[in-house]
Amino acid sequence: MSHPPPVSLNLNIRGLGISATLEIQQRCAELRRQGREVFNFGLGQSPFPVPQSVVEALRRHADKKAYLPVHGLPELREAVAECHRSRDGVDIRPDCVLVGPGSKELMFLLQLVFYGEILIRTPCWVSYLPQAQIIGRRVSRLHTTFDDHWKVRPEALLRAIELVHDDDRPRILVLNYPDNPTGLAYSADELRELAEVAQRFGVIVLSDEIYGPLHHRNAHVSIARYYPEGTIISSGLSKWCGAGGWRLGTFAFPPDLRWLMDALAAAASETYTSVSAPIQYAAIRAFEDGPDILAYLRDARRVLAAVGEASYAILSEAGLRLHPPQGAFYLFLDFSPFAERLAARGIRNSATLCEHLLEQIGVAVLPGSAFVRPRSELTCRLAYVDFDGAAVLKAAAAQPDGPLDAAFAAQHCPNVIEGCRRIAAWVGRL
Amino acid sequence: MSHPPPVSLNLNIRGLGISATLEIQQRCAELRRQGREVFNFGLGQSPFPVPQSVVEALRRHADKKAYLPVHGLPELREAVAECHRSRDGVDIRPDCVLVGPGSKELMFLLQLVFYGEILIRTPCWVSYLPQAQIIGRRVSRLHTTFDDHWKVRPEALLRAIELVHDDDRPRILVLNYPDNPTGLAYSADELRELAEVAQRFGVIVLSDEIYGPLHHRNAHVSIARYYPEGTIISSGLSKWCGAGGWRLGTFAFPPDLRWLMDALAAAASETYTSVSAPIQYAAIRAFEDGPDILAYLRDARRVLAAVGEASYAILSEAGLRLHPPQGAFYLFLDFSPFAERLAARGIRNSATLCEHLLEQIGVAVLPGSAFVRPRSELTCRLAYVDFDGAAVLKAAAAQPDGPLDAAFAAQHCPNVIEGCRRIAAWVGRL
Repeated sequence: MSHPPPVSLNLNIRGLGISATLEIQQRCAELRRQGREVFNFGLGQSPFPVPQSVVEALRRHADKKAYLPVHGLPELREAVAECHRSRDGVDIRPDCVLVGPGSKELMFLLQLVFYGEILIRTPCWVSYLPQAQIIGRRVSRLHTTFDDHWKVRPEALLRAIELVHDDDRPRILVLNYPDNPTGLAYSADELRELAEVAQRFGVIVLSDEIYGPLHHRNAHVSIARYYPEGTIISSGLSKWCGAGGWRLGTFAFPPDLRWLMDALAAAASETYTSVSAPIQYAAIRAFEDGPDILAYLRDARRVLAAVGEASYAILSEAGLRLHPPQGAFYLFLDFSPFAERLAARGIRNSATLCEHLLEQIGVAVLPGSAFVRPRSELTCRLAYVDFDGAAVLKAAAAQPDGPLDAAFAAQHCPNVIEGCRRIAAWVGRL
Repeated sequence: MSHPPPVSLNLNIRGLGISATLEIQQRCAELRRQGREVFNFGLGQSPFPVPQSVVEALRRHADKKAYLPVHGLPELREAVAECHRSRDGVDIRPDCVLVGPGSKELMFLLQLVFYGEILIRTPCWVSYLPQAQIIGRRVSRLHTTFDDHWKVRPEALLRAIELVHDDDRPRILVLNYPDNPTGLAYSADELRELAEVAQRFGVIVLSDEIYGPLHHRNAHVSIARYYPEGTIISSGLSKWCGAGGWRLGTFAFPPDLRWLMDALAAAASETYTSVSAPIQYAAIRAFEDGPDILAYLRDARRVLAAVGEASYAILSEAGLRLHPPQGAFYLFLDFSPFAERLAARGIRNSATLCEHLLEQIGVAVLPGSAFVRPRSELTCRLAYVDFDGAAVLKAAAAQPDGPLDAAFAAQHCPNVIEGCRRIAAWVGRL
């Protein structure tokens, strides 16, 4: 081989591995192939099936073959806008909706085309920072604390802006609620106060609301209600519609930010071109909020609330620090009450902690460091999704209306409950 | 509004519009809505439907919802490797296949992760240069000529390398054959000579062979046969499988370039994540080369050969300069014999030429400048795809084996023939 050695890589890419969430998934599959018992709380994949009517819509449109417009299929953009109007009470124009192959790709393009500072809360979703790194974009991290429920506080946002002495600097603040990785949500008042600061400094808010319909009490509020002119709402099929593998995400822009949407579309037209046509046609059905979709969402919320609550009870009882879950399917665990005993076993950071949990009790969770928390902080994210979503939804639909209880969770989601018990027993043995 | 004005865009993105091919498509749709007669030779979209068995496969797999591995579904990677073995006689390892949402996206990621010089022939496919511009990557253009059949010659490649005085510089040469925009193909001898130069200097060849199965005489040869250790073969469903809107492309790497594949996969895991799951399952059927797929490809080739030949005859008879087509569905027209008469009407560049063709005779073609030819060169690309592919395939299947003739083309693809006649009449009137 006369080739030069493999050194010809963009410096921004070198050392970049497969995203942590995808990696843990591949690792779990491997362990299971080896016959090991694994409680897979790693990947944040919805356990629920795609609603039947949406699957049927994909079958009906399987022969759609044309390249669709780069912004998205017009009928789908209308359905998305209408969905935001009816679910969130936010006025979105169909021609201000952009459809992409996952909201992750749209966020990448947003960071690529926007020239400015990106403000990101930690713990943060695993891909925000690698995306910025690939592009070479400047990121300011807003570190939060357990006591603040891991939320960005208006004073913290204000301080981050004022410290720079450049009030007009173009900025995007990324928010996410119900939150990955903490399962917590902002209240209307908290959002209103954040909106005030953002508005004062012209900070664009990218509001990642992909878990909005999975707020356990169906009480999701969009910050766009308080800051419509500066908020981009991010959503998609991956979480509330159980269709992570389908790859369809949406951004809803205010009319004032059309220039930004059009720049994303220009970049899209030179990269992914448009989202898969059959998938777009099928997605219309999902966003239309038919009675079956509303029933599906209602039961998904009831199940997640019950499983989250039961898991929380076991883990907090065991002495771990965590907050009662409010939405999505995550708990963010803090093992610091056991810090000394963990250190005595050589466990001094979250990555080692997670290694031990996987090796010793077969529980796969992601370390806080994957969410850009300090390496030595003993936190991790638990995704309580290791159950048969189709069966559980059926069981939930058969129960009378109203909340489901811990007995339901134990009966129908035994792996989640058993995995939490193992964590509890493990810290008890330390 | 206290927002700063919309100036906060990446300088590499400013001024970037929607890709020329997508733009002409939207323009044609608009004119047709206005009731204008349009001969749509703009967008290079396959006129043929997705084969029925592949559509059926998508229906069967409509409920697949999981995130798939970032490199692609293992069974699909196997089918792609086997397809290259059987169609191209090239040995590809399944674990060296990367699946992406269109080969365009994979090319973007390749330019993003590779740190080196990109060598691109002109006329070149419309997205190569905007991609490099977005990323800020350095591109060297290899300009070719009509007399050289618009092909990269080994001497020209050698000269481009030697002029730089940096023989070991990491480089990627992008080749495309059968060729967009010219419809021409390299012979085995031409490829062997190019391979020798590339090999001598360790230049990686990105060989875009997405039109390979549409070589009119089924005589496609991959350069990987002569340079297996340094060639990445690009393919996908968009052209030979009629599924442009599905968005699935593939790169097949040699084992020596795994480091490059893995860097692309790392970037993919932070951007599009993986290709839509139902689409990947369905694509297996397409790459498996069942008897129906082989019959579909055989008839598609017969139709394209007949239509291309008939169009060529009309246009060359009228005095335009062009080469007999060899593959895909493009003709690259040179109006220079009419330069003086065009100039007398104020037409001095390819963009104005195309404007006139669309306005005066309703023929939509793309200007040579969109393919990075000099602005004043009077060239344009004609995509002879404005016919009902499903009906024509059926008609072809009903004909005895062997070539189809001009009468077949005139009967079954009347819009293409009429559009070519209008061009001929228009230049006759100049």
